[in-house]
Formats: sequence, structure tokens, C-alpha cells
Amino acid sequence: MRSLLLLSAAALLMGVAPAKKLLTPNDVVAGAPASAWKTIDPDDLLVMDLKNGGRVVVQLAPEFAPVHVANIKALARSSYWDGASIYRVQDNYVAQWGLNESDKPWPKGVTAKPPAEYTRTLKGLAVKPLGYADPYAPGAGFARGWPIAYSAKGGWANLAHCYASVGVGRDLSPDTGTGGELYAVIGHAPRHLDRNIAVVGRVIEGIDKLSSLPRGTEALGFYKDKSQNVRITSIRLASEIPAADRPAFEYLDTGSASFALYLRVRANRHDDFYIRPAGGVDLCNVQVPVRRKA
Amino acid sequence: MRSLLLLSAAALLMGVAPAKKLLTPNDVVAGAPASAWKTIDPDDLLVMDLKNGGRVVVQLAPEFAPVHVANIKALARSSYWDGASIYRVQDNYVAQWGLNESDKPWPKGVTAKPPAEYTRTLKGLAVKPLGYADPYAPGAGFARGWPIAYSAKGGWANLAHCYASVGVGRDLSPDTGTGGELYAVIGHAPRHLDRNIAVVGRVIEGIDKLSSLPRGTEALGFYKDKSQNVRITSIRLASEIPAADRPAFEYLDTGSASFALYLRVRANRHDDFYIRPAGGVDLCNVQVPVRRKA
Repeated sequence: MRSLLLLSAAALLMGVAPAKKLLTPNDVVAGAPASAWKTIDPDDLLVMDLKNGGRVVVQLAPEFAPVHVANIKALARSSYWDGASIYRVQDNYVAQWGLNESDKPWPKGVTAKPPAEYTRTLKGLAVKPLGYADPYAPGAGFARGWPIAYSAKGGWANLAHCYASVGVGRDLSPDTGTGGELYAVIGHAPRHLDRNIAVVGRVIEGIDKLSSLPRGTEALGFYKDKSQNVRITSIRLASEIPAADRPAFEYLDTGSASFALYLRVRANRHDDFYIRPAGGVDLCNVQVPVRRKA
Repeated sequence: MRSLLLLSAAALLMGVAPAKKLLTPNDVVAGAPASAWKTIDPDDLLVMDLKNGGRVVVQLAPEFAPVHVANIKALARSSYWDGASIYRVQDNYVAQWGLNESDKPWPKGVTAKPPAEYTRTLKGLAVKPLGYADPYAPGAGFARGWPIAYSAKGGWANLAHCYASVGVGRDLSPDTGTGGELYAVIGHAPRHLDRNIAVVGRVIEGIDKLSSLPRGTEALGFYKDKSQNVRITSIRLASEIPAADRPAFEYLDTGSASFALYLRVRANRHDDFYIRPAGGVDLCNVQVPVRRKA
């Protein structure tokens, strides 16, 4: 009853007429005012076009892994990935792409051995707490549009490995990966990778172009034969693409009242289909809304 | 340090020589004694063969949803699903199959309106607790080889919606679904469905045959055109299949010492790749080991 009342009050605040029909998460997103949306910088959008016609768009997170992200931008700008492919698809885990086992030299501007950007300082991040226990970290929540885990005591925060998160492939430590080989999560959140790998962003459009690929039959989901690799036409920054073809996106500000309501509704589904609202939700089951910008 | 010592002690108990190399979850499974494995009754295995050659095997859970599971067995035995197809594939959610929108009469032995088997009594279940907080229920753990959520106070338990879980499609309540339309989870665990739908089992082989299908482009992932539907050749119980072709499986007893060690190692990855063990794990990130029986 309490959450019903809160929902109605929040709906009123948002200018949504209270109705008998209870709000769904989609209703909240549709009703969020323009002021609750933040445009993504086209220089933080990595656009991967596949030979099969599919397009995958990744939002980069320079504020969480600045050196790795700077590398990725330098690689994109120098057309480093010409001839690259998706060569590993492991069910309920990851799809991975790049120039696997190539010894192509790094272009100018790439730091060959970046620091281990697996966490960042919590300082400077205004966190909207999830409000429910997280088994992987003392705290979980959202900051600057991203799902994060954190420790107030330890002073650290990390981007969480959720569905569609993008990370940097690496060899055994002390290797930290460079950014030439990237993976996207295509299954249940592998949160055990948190703080062990540099997470550099998330797929915001076209994750289905990766998740629906045939699984590789070799160990770790590598394709057995290189002919099975999925060819990549180009990987560019949106900022390099002519304006007419340039995709533009915005995300729901995780510090907004709309996001707070969205989070509450995700944790307490009251709409028609549901009989028993969970009264809780896990971090990766609260996808931060991202949409095409008109 | 404490968990390292415990690992070594447990390794000794299992007859595994303690070594410098730290155990992976796979090592634990490979080292589990024969006594830790339980054979799955062939009458609890639903075998779905696709026209494209793929096979999907579902383990049914009669102890959690007896009427729905009895329905599914009656449907399989009567070849009810002749002409069925996979008609809905929604990214990061579910693949769903059956005779969508057919008015084929139910065969003998099918209860048209089963009770809402969304929970069962906790009584009679020996639970191995997960040991970490679950945002969806007061308790989480494992019983009879299944991941469950439960309330000791409320006296209920439910099968959790994890990757590869199989549930019964239904319309709005009071409909409870019959079992003719089934779905499998192909993305991050949609635990908000827990206690709102009858979960009847899990895919134990061939989930990739569902997860790698093209996503439907209509609302909720329905295929736009029926020609896109993925045809099903047959859905049978393993017990109906001639012995030579009959698949046989076993699962790691969730009450065994081996499973306890597996759970501990899943929560504390110490092996070569990992720098920082999480010190925790979520229910659906601990897949109960299931394997082909020799």
C-alpha cells in the first residue's frame, strides 16, 4: 500500500495523471520529462558495422577507464580494426571481437600497457543507491548513467558486469589488456569479473546482433574455423561519421526523479501481469534506459 | 586466507591432492566422487527436436509444479505438439514455443485449469543456503538440485527464474497456464517473474539452440511472419525414446560436500585469471552442474 501511494505521488509530480492502471517501467520512461534525459557525446559512441549488415553501438565510459577508452578511440580513429572479426561467442557469457592473435603494431596514441583500471575512486560520483543488498560489493547503485558497485569505506567504485557490458580482453595479470580485443556480455551478469577486468562501456543498440550469433564450439566459445568468424566492416566513433548517418542517443539521468521512480517500479511490479511484486531487484536487472535521440 | 585453508581441507577430504594451483569450479566438478551425482529419471526429461537438427533437453521438476508437469507429460505422450514451433524470441528474456493460438483440444489427462503452482511448501526440502543476500526473497539456496528462493517464516519456496529456466506461458491472472506454451530464459535472470508464473524445469542441454535464434521484431519478440517460426519435429519424454537414442543425465547433489565446495569456489574465484575474488555470488550465477551420464 505504501508503494502504491508513493507511486501515485510521484506520478503527480511528473505530471502523469493518476489512473487505475498501475505504472509499468515503460510508462515511467515514456513519461519522463525532456530534462531527465542526457545526450551522449558522439565522441563516446563506438559504432561497429558488420559485413552481414548488422550495426552494434557501444557507449564508452571514459570516466571509469580513461586510458583504455583513450586507446579504443585512438584505435578507431586510425582504422586499426580493418579486417577485424568476431571470433569468440560463448553461450551465457560473452561475444568477443578484434584482430585476434595479430601482431599489428599499435598506432600512435595507444598506451601499450595501461594501468589496471578495474576500479576508480568513489569521490566525485553522486550515487543513487540501488536500495537492496548486492552479494558482490558493500554497495550497489547508479552514477552518471551507469550501474556500479562500490565501497564507501574503501573509497572505490567499479562499473558492474551486466548484460551488454563491454570489457577489455586481457591475458593473465599483470597484463591489463590494451583495448584491441573487446567483449560484450550476452548472458547472465558475470559479476565475478568485476574488479578483475577493465569495463569500458556497454552496447546500447544492436546487442541482439551479438547475442544471436552461433556459439563457437571450441573451448571458451572460440570458433573452430576462421571461416566462421563474423566479419567487421568498420569500427568508428560516431563523431567521425557524417552527420546524416550519425546515430545519436540519450540516457535517463540516474540522478533524476524519473529514474528513482523507474527503479521503484522495477523492484515492485504492480502492473496487470504481476500477482506478487518482488519488493526488491538486483543491480543488473535495472537496465538504465537509453534511446535514440530524435 | 581462511577460504584458502578451507579449500585445501576440502580438497583433502575429496581425495584431491593439494597443489599450488588453486581449484576452479570445473576442477571441483571433475573431482566430485560418483556418490555425489544423482541420475535424472528419464520420465522427467523432455526432449525437443528441431527441424534444423538441434536438440533441446529439459529437466522437469514435478516436485515443484506437479499438475503443470503432469500436463506437460500428458501432452508429450499424446504427441500434442505435432506441428508446434518456436514463435517468440525476445532478446535478454525468453524463447517461447508451442501451438500458439491453436484451439486444439487438450488430450486426456490434461488439467485445463491447474492451480497456481508458483510456490510450494518449504517443508520437506533440505536447503543448502546460498550464504549471501538475495534481493528477491528472504532466503536463497539449493534443494534437490534446483536453485530456489524461500521464506522460512512464510513456509514457502519457489524455483528461481535463472538462465535456462523453463516456465509456463500464461495469460493475465486468474489464468495459470496449462503447459502447452513453454518458455526458456535466454538472458539475465528475470527474477521478478518468481512467484508469478509456474516454473517447471530447466534446459540442461542445447540452450544455445534457443539463445542463438534470431530475435523476433514484433512486440515481446514475436516473429513478424509465421514463416520465421522455428519448426519443431517432436517433443517427447526421454522415457518414450528407444534406449539406443535415449539421452541420460546426472546432476551434482546440492546436498553433497562437493557442491558445497563448488559453491564456495564460485563465490571466491582464486584461480589464475582472478586478482580479486568477489567474496559473494548471486543465486543464478551458481549453475548446478549437470552432465551426460556415460
